[in-house]
Amino acid sequence: MMSVSKEEQSTPTIAFIGLGQMGLAMAGNLLTAGYRLRVWNRTPDKARPLLERGATLANSPTEAAAAGTGIVITMLTDDGALNELVHGAGGFASVLGPGMVHISMSTIAPVTAEALAADHVGRGAGFVAAPVFGKPDAAAAARLVICVSGDPDAKARVAPVLAVLGHRLADFGDNPAAAPTIKLAGNFMIGAAIEAMGEAFTLAEKTGVPRHLVNELFSSTMFACPVYQNYGKMIASRHYQPAGASPALIRKDMRLVLEHAARQQVPMPVASLVHDRLTATVAKGVKGVDWTAFVEEVSISAGR
Amino acid sequence: MMSVSKEEQSTPTIAFIGLGQMGLAMAGNLLTAGYRLRVWNRTPDKARPLLERGATLANSPTEAAAAGTGIVITMLTDDGALNELVHGAGGFASVLGPGMVHISMSTIAPVTAEALAADHVGRGAGFVAAPVFGKPDAAAAARLVICVSGDPDAKARVAPVLAVLGHRLADFGDNPAAAPTIKLAGNFMIGAAIEAMGEAFTLAEKTGVPRHLVNELFSSTMFACPVYQNYGKMIASRHYQPAGASPALIRKDMRLVLEHAARQQVPMPVASLVHDRLTATVAKGVKGVDWTAFVEEVSISAGR
Amino acid sequence: MMSVSKEEQSTPTIAFIGLGQMGLAMAGNLLTAGYRLRVWNRTPDKARPLLERGATLANSPTEAAAAGTGIVITMLTDDGALNELVHGAGGFASVLGPGMVHISMSTIAPVTAEALAADHVGRGAGFVAAPVFGKPDAAAAARLVICVSGDPDAKARVAPVLAVLGHRLADFGDNPAAAPTIKLAGNFMIGAAIEAMGEAFTLAEKTGVPRHLVNELFSSTMFACPVYQNYGKMIASRHYQPAGASPALIRKDMRLVLEHAARQQVPMPVASLVHDRLTATVAKGVKGVDWTAFVEEVSISAGR
Amino acid sequence: MMSVSKEEQSTPTIAFIGLGQMGLAMAGNLLTAGYRLRVWNRTPDKARPLLERGATLANSPTEAAAAGTGIVITMLTDDGALNELVHGAGGFASVLGPGMVHISMSTIAPVTAEALAADHVGRGAGFVAAPVFGKPDAAAAARLVICVSGDPDAKARVAPVLAVLGHRLADFGDNPAAAPTIKLAGNFMIGAAIEAMGEAFTLAEKTGVPRHLVNELFSSTMFACPVYQNYGKMIASRHYQPAGASPALIRKDMRLVLEHAARQQVPMPVASLVHDRLTATVAKGVKGVDWTAFVEEVSISAGR
Repeated sequence: MMSVSKEEQSTPTIAFIGLGQMGLAMAGNLLTAGYRLRVWNRTPDKARPLLERGATLANSPTEAAAAGTGIVITMLTDDGALNELVHGAGGFASVLGPGMVHISMSTIAPVTAEALAADHVGRGAGFVAAPVFGKPDAAAAARLVICVSGDPDAKARVAPVLAVLGHRLADFGDNPAAAPTIKLAGNFMIGAAIEAMGEAFTLAEKTGVPRHLVNELFSSTMFACPVYQNYGKMIASRHYQPAGASPALIRKDMRLVLEHAARQQVPMPVASLVHDRLTATVAKGVKGVDWTAFVEEVSISAGR
Repeated sequence: MMSVSKEEQSTPTIAFIGLGQMGLAMAGNLLTAGYRLRVWNRTPDKARPLLERGATLANSPTEAAAAGTGIVITMLTDDGALNELVHGAGGFASVLGPGMVHISMSTIAPVTAEALAADHVGRGAGFVAAPVFGKPDAAAAARLVICVSGDPDAKARVAPVLAVLGHRLADFGDNPAAAPTIKLAGNFMIGAAIEAMGEAFTLAEKTGVPRHLVNELFSSTMFACPVYQNYGKMIASRHYQPAGASPALIRKDMRLVLEHAARQQVPMPVASLVHDRLTATVAKGVKGVDWTAFVEEVSISAGR
Repeated sequence: MMSVSKEEQSTPTIAFIGLGQMGLAMAGNLLTAGYRLRVWNRTPDKARPLLERGATLANSPTEAAAAGTGIVITMLTDDGALNELVHGAGGFASVLGPGMVHISMSTIAPVTAEALAADHVGRGAGFVAAPVFGKPDAAAAARLVICVSGDPDAKARVAPVLAVLGHRLADFGDNPAAAPTIKLAGNFMIGAAIEAMGEAFTLAEKTGVPRHLVNELFSSTMFACPVYQNYGKMIASRHYQPAGASPALIRKDMRLVLEHAARQQVPMPVASLVHDRLTATVAKGVKGVDWTAFVEEVSISAGR
Repeated sequence: MMSVSKEEQSTPTIAFIGLGQMGLAMAGNLLTAGYRLRVWNRTPDKARPLLERGATLANSPTEAAAAGTGIVITMLTDDGALNELVHGAGGFASVLGPGMVHISMSTIAPVTAEALAADHVGRGAGFVAAPVFGKPDAAAAARLVICVSGDPDAKARVAPVLAVLGHRLADFGDNPAAAPTIKLAGNFMIGAAIEAMGEAFTLAEKTGVPRHLVNELFSSTMFACPVYQNYGKMIASRHYQPAGASPALIRKDMRLVLEHAARQQVPMPVASLVHDRLTATVAKGVKGVDWTAFVEEVSISAGR
């Protein structure tokens, strides 16, 4: 949690839509910080822990959004789900208006952020893109890294709310597409690091050096940082548990990277490779593992 | 400098061959630690600072090696130079014998290490592969990370000497090819990280986000480690100074990576890509910049 | 022109929408074969040569389609244009009904074909995907290769019309997505051949062998076929004229290839590479050349 | 067989070294054309069919070369074998002298050709690089395509001999490295075509279009040439028989391509990919199939 004045946070109600592992943890922190929540989730059962702590269950996204402080947070699986909840039947676009801000915190395409921002502005409401880095445990500990971009007034308005959810807020300016781009770039960089470790560890292994020895050296020296330490452990052991984000889910993210790269005219050969590795993993039916498991493709191609 | 008993180090003479930026700094630390040095370099002028501090200049690698404690350290540009100094005219192979150990500290092909080890064993001498991670400033500060592999007795014998040169010694076992493989793997991983940052930063930049903002976020969170921090700064600013290792030099290392990977039957697509980027950089005549400048190829391909 | 019974072709009127270089040549052949045409083009001026030969100009796609035999041919730049003409304001979807068949002859996404087929079936009409291989001169000479797929009855109905436009009709079954896939696969294979020639010719050139010598040998022996002969000449001379399809246009096709490949879960690394080459070409602002010019990226990366 | 004056060919003896499938067929044609042969092979049994037709068996490469007309033909597996037969114990370099020409007809590294040419010139002898395109059946039918380069006098001298072996002689100039480069470039282009067909056919197949339908269309239209027709059949059927060159053998060729490309500073990403596919094939222990089988890697990565 960041040290931001909490005055504004005393009593208002926030609409929180999307209660997966991440959303649930984040919503819980908002309750702890004193916010009232009106929540909605496709499968309402997931909301139970929040309802027990005082949150209210809405019957539709519209109902959740309509009755709030004007802040609507969405944390959904993909752009399709988000667009449906905004623009579909029962979608909350119809209730957006002056004084309201929609904070989109899931990983979405930069074009989707642009489209939503344009739509919301047309209704007099604000849109803030605020995708996060961090796994469910970081979400629960309010240790997310939050990237924000969008209208300055809207960002200022929601800053205290975001301060409850993360320990770092990085502002990427007014362009609503900026923060989603950074989120995609970060996921891509993790994928690239996984691939690089896979190639390096496999080379060492086939030369007779145990993978974990390589990982221990690099993750405690030149690459002594969370990505190499956390993913390196899985890659060294070739045990891709616990299964966080699935190969299929992050493959979707890599598609968003490549689509955005195509739009911005940036050839990204390593992103193409990581996407292809994930495609192979999904095509082979690999399941129940963390997405890091795509790195097994390196071992397979080396006959291991 | 590591805390290793220095008893053995009181007075013996070490032959030190190869006085480039790295070698000079390392040799200086050996003098500081009380070792006597007999040095040789192709251009003898470079030895002056050491001679002023008491080192002796040898007229040939053979002369340097013959008169020592039995420890010969080589720190040369490439495998060709090393092989020439060992096996060529005036090469020191002829004076190797029981009680002597050759420590090869430059980046060499694993096969070269194997061949030298086999050669030296045939002469009753030992071979220790001990390539290092760290730039000249780290060498000067005795803060190198040293990877060793080779004959256990030889390694034990030279451990105190290596302790003077670095702050971390990572042992990769008996196979002389192991440590050189780890060194190549590490350089490859740095190259992969550079490429990944280049793709990510360029995507952000073309979406309107300044490169340095991306770098600041990632190098202080998920990627808060030396490689991303140091190289990230150059990539964010697109100013590839100071020029450490040249594109041509590290391109040579990437060839060694790919040759070793071919021999061990490990497809390494990112290594191929990094090699190709460096080839393009060299082919275009780019000079006077750090090898990190290969990442400009990403910008160029994106029309920047 | 294929030898197909022409009975059905005696007098009926066909709606022809899209009069670019290809469409104009194809429509001309239909007039020659005795069909009456009702044509529409975004810029009506292009229709003049056809009007002089008796074709009628429609004021909208709807008007063109409504007054015909029930056969509507579309030959448009991209999926967006096609969807607009079908479903947009003045689009002809509203007039489709029993007895009508829409033949889509441009290069479109397989998913677009599926969506159009589903839409048309819902209206009682038929949809035939019939993309073509061949440049405008082949279109003018009725020497197109036409790939068809879709509903068998609809295909049978339009076979005589297609016979007028090409000299080869290849049937890929009932799936409307099949023929568009083959068209994309073919364009990809051409792109791959261009890239391969570029790499091979550049290697030869930098070894001192003139590019045209390599091209002459291969295009008259192992690779004695139109793609290598026609594109090889441009690549050997590095003169990418006449400018047929632009880099931007075929880049769009390669995006369709990659999107379809992602959907079908097929990693296609060479397609990714060709797409990236085209992206670099477009990003650099290269214009007025044939798309083959993407192969200059090979030369550039080799310092030429 | 090409129409070249055969005067010079009346009776002279040629040394023929290397009697694999290719060499045996070629040597047979020389006998048919009236040449006397002195042959050598590591396993002498292979020479039997030639001995029965009048060839003489030499006890060493030196003996074979010493007694000839001054023309020595080598047709060996790789550069190592060639260098051994030239420079090793019993190697024929020692007997080379004025009036002699060594024709190297196997696939070798351009640098090896350069080194041999320099060596032979130093002895007053000539060197002609004359690698061939064609399988054993083409060799038997004297329908090889022969690429030559080297000293003009030496080339003129051996032209009638080469005319017996092939139906097309392509001269790439004086540089002994030129013809070997073209041979490597050609093998690379075949590999690229195989990969491209693999990606295209797999995309079609996963869209429901049988592979053979795609192959039939393309190999009879845009790609109606031997490479696509012959390899396409194997790729369409996924039956990689008969096993011509093995994956391991052509992987060696692709290493030569990449080594030469590195030396000439030409990034060749498709060559890297084909090499990696072959590496995966070899690493997995795939045997008894034609090298075309590397394309199975495409299917595997698509979950097929």
